[in-house]
Amino acid sequence: MNERKKMAIIVHSGTMDKLYPVFMLASSGSAMDLEVHLFFTFWGLNALKRGGLDGAKLPGLMSLGTGMMKGRIRDAKVPPLTELLRMCREMGNLKIYACSTTMELMNVKEEELIPEVDDIVGATVFLDIALDADVQLFI
Amino acid sequence: MNERKKMAIIVHSGTMDKLYPVFMLASSGSAMDLEVHLFFTFWGLNALKRGGLDGAKLPGLMSLGTGMMKGRIRDAKVPPLTELLRMCREMGNLKIYACSTTMELMNVKEEELIPEVDDIVGATVFLDIALDADVQLFI
Amino acid sequence: MNERKKMAIIVHSGTMDKLYPVFMLASSGSAMDLEVHLFFTFWGLNALKRGGLDGAKLPGLMSLGTGMMKGRIRDAKVPPLTELLRMCREMGNLKIYACSTTMELMNVKEEELIPEVDDIVGATVFLDIALDADVQLFI
Repeated sequence: MNERKKMAIIVHSGTMDKLYPVFMLASSGSAMDLEVHLFFTFWGLNALKRGGLDGAKLPGLMSLGTGMMKGRIRDAKVPPLTELLRMCREMGNLKIYACSTTMELMNVKEEELIPEVDDIVGATVFLDIALDADVQLFI
Repeated sequence: MNERKKMAIIVHSGTMDKLYPVFMLASSGSAMDLEVHLFFTFWGLNALKRGGLDGAKLPGLMSLGTGMMKGRIRDAKVPPLTELLRMCREMGNLKIYACSTTMELMNVKEEELIPEVDDIVGATVFLDIALDADVQLFI
Repeated sequence: MNERKKMAIIVHSGTMDKLYPVFMLASSGSAMDLEVHLFFTFWGLNALKRGGLDGAKLPGLMSLGTGMMKGRIRDAKVPPLTELLRMCREMGNLKIYACSTTMELMNVKEEELIPEVDDIVGATVFLDIALDADVQLFI
């Protein structure tokens, strides 16, 4: 009866500085054999569009420094976001949800999303998962 | 002895893109019969001033796109923030707190707040509620 | 066997408006006899560099208003961040962690950090603490 611990993250941000913690936590959690549930909503939904993770920038005026930050990330041997996603996927306990309301709001079609998306759900479905989780974060 | 599950959200942001998730989560939680506790602090306090919810904008330079976003929200049939608040209120398990320290800091008087505010409390009181909650978020 | 309740905060932001809630929650938590664990990552790491807390500004264009906000904070008799940190430290149940990956990324050396830092750890170590915490927040 050794149930897996669970982490639920609401990913509201679409900027690179926030997506890195999301996927660093997700990959750490997967390596620790947690169930990891990521719900991408509002700006976060952009990260689930094809090319979205690679195109994420630093916020506001700092966006000009995105290339330099990517260089530092590479130098520190931190994998790119798409690679972190792939690693999480291979470890196998990650679920990725796109927020249905945001898809309507931003007029995003299902075929625009990356194939790693497991499901398109509303806030109620995700909240139900979060209620049972050991860690919940809004990023 | 079936105790209600509880969600506690610290609302630090006052921008429209963050207030929507707050009230979408609050209304989903209310519909799921959770106790929902919202603590408005720092920029978030503006949302509790009369006209504050209607006046909330997108952050930074994106504030110019606020009207367009409101149009999309309307088209997607998502209710305005004030209507979401009213809906939560009618479902009845929502408590709204204004942060007492922020009120001093921003020089906000009690009579400037909307009548939906249940109480003006400090961080310690809210933290005590959060310790018992099943979901805690900082937005 | 009355175990202390625990709060774990991931401090991702380095701006003054976010660092205040971090240290207000930390000092409230310490006063309530909680164990408080703060993990400083990404922009948050700047707050752990010598002079970092005093140098923190409001975000983006609002940074111009930092001095005015500091004046209001002083008028409201809220202690400066460095004083809040000292108060937490004296109450004694606070642990401060610097994110090891961020240190590499931002090229920060251990000797640049304030002496209040207890340890330099990775996300996995902190996640393990957070899994056991009663309150977890990402700020």
